[in-house]
Amino acid sequence: MKQLILIRHGESEWNKLNLFTGWTDVDLTEAGRKEAYEAGVLLKKEGYRPQMCYTSYLKRAVRTLNQVLEAMDMDYLPVEKSWRLNEKSYGAIQGLNKADTAAKYGDEQVLLWRRSFDVQPPALELNDERSPRMDPRYAELSDSEIPLTESLKDTIARLMPYYKNVILKSFERYDTVMVVAHGNSLRGIVKELRGMTNDEIIKFNIPTAVPYIFEFDDQMKLQKEFFLGNQEEIRKKMESVANQAKKK
Amino acid sequence: MKQLILIRHGESEWNKLNLFTGWTDVDLTEAGRKEAYEAGVLLKKEGYRPQMCYTSYLKRAVRTLNQVLEAMDMDYLPVEKSWRLNEKSYGAIQGLNKADTAAKYGDEQVLLWRRSFDVQPPALELNDERSPRMDPRYAELSDSEIPLTESLKDTIARLMPYYKNVILKSFERYDTVMVVAHGNSLRGIVKELRGMTNDEIIKFNIPTAVPYIFEFDDQMKLQKEFFLGNQEEIRKKMESVANQAKKK
Repeated sequence: MKQLILIRHGESEWNKLNLFTGWTDVDLTEAGRKEAYEAGVLLKKEGYRPQMCYTSYLKRAVRTLNQVLEAMDMDYLPVEKSWRLNEKSYGAIQGLNKADTAAKYGDEQVLLWRRSFDVQPPALELNDERSPRMDPRYAELSDSEIPLTESLKDTIARLMPYYKNVILKSFERYDTVMVVAHGNSLRGIVKELRGMTNDEIIKFNIPTAVPYIFEFDDQMKLQKEFFLGNQEEIRKKMESVANQAKKK
Repeated sequence: MKQLILIRHGESEWNKLNLFTGWTDVDLTEAGRKEAYEAGVLLKKEGYRPQMCYTSYLKRAVRTLNQVLEAMDMDYLPVEKSWRLNEKSYGAIQGLNKADTAAKYGDEQVLLWRRSFDVQPPALELNDERSPRMDPRYAELSDSEIPLTESLKDTIARLMPYYKNVILKSFERYDTVMVVAHGNSLRGIVKELRGMTNDEIIKFNIPTAVPYIFEFDDQMKLQKEFFLGNQEEIRKKMESVANQAKKK
């Protein structure tokens, strides 16, 4: 049997402030670190033994993974980081309050920016200090690779080469692989694995810091998928994510 | 200019209890985490920008590196972990108190086990539960690679292929490389870089969580080396390490 464990990072400072984050590199809150650690405690208790880990270039994902590995007592595991696992870029609305943005543009427009398949938020200007083109960590990427805004479709397009050529390919060597990333990069993986439509994925909310387990047979045919943990608590977490951008 | 930054992990639980640790996978103390974080603060303040990091399979080193990267706000850096950077194996005296061991066997014998170039401590029995051969993280190694005890000479012998073929080689791609490891694995690197004799290296104490900077020209010829930080505090730290195994 093969297992893929997906984990969305714990609560970040900007989740808490209800700001659009995207590629902005914000830290976890204390609560976010704690829920990440708890996810590791749960994985260990249930006997999961990942052999390889993947995460993004953003600290809220890296630090979530660090907490999970500490809790599992598996700090020695190999970890590979990739910008392709980064959150969807929210372009020029990064740093804006979700409720304010909804009040100004309407729930529907904001829901499109957040959750449509192919509508991009307004792009960052080339000279915007928020642009990742100014950030040394992306220096090795070509300008065309560094997004100034992204739809979910764009996010999936830059994620897929990494997902297929690196993550999936690593199952040739490993039985259990763990990916700690973001709401929308994980959505790309879930859509692919479950064969969901554009409309289904837009409505699908991944709760923070809950291990989402995919089990495959040895030919990598999906056998089952489930969220690990207390199902009632997980349902509440999913609802809370869905309601985040409704205006207050 | 090329730079190699060496950092010995922060204070561990067993440093504090004055026990021989070796390959035993003990955690940092709170003080150890804090000094690791401070090392990162200092590196950032002084403008160091590593591009690649190496550490061991032992959590006191991995967690030190995590703290350094958090403090530098460089969580996204690539990290490679290798058992070859592990501490010297102290064999069957792992878990024994240093002062008690010194009282029983004499300061001189213990100093030989700790600091001679080629005297091994008594070996772990094959069925000893402390043996790394029982530990899944080393499952990919052959029995002959997994030490049951080591002299400093043995430690250097298994370190060198990694140091030369991976760490030094990475300067073809990177200008600044950081290695977070252990007293004796770092001793191997320092001995090589400074051309020290066996006798010199036995007396050389590397303080915990102090960035040890080696600067090279572009042909990797060593230009200078120094400990970064307050020199008086560093001297005190080095003395404290040297006195650890004297009987009380």
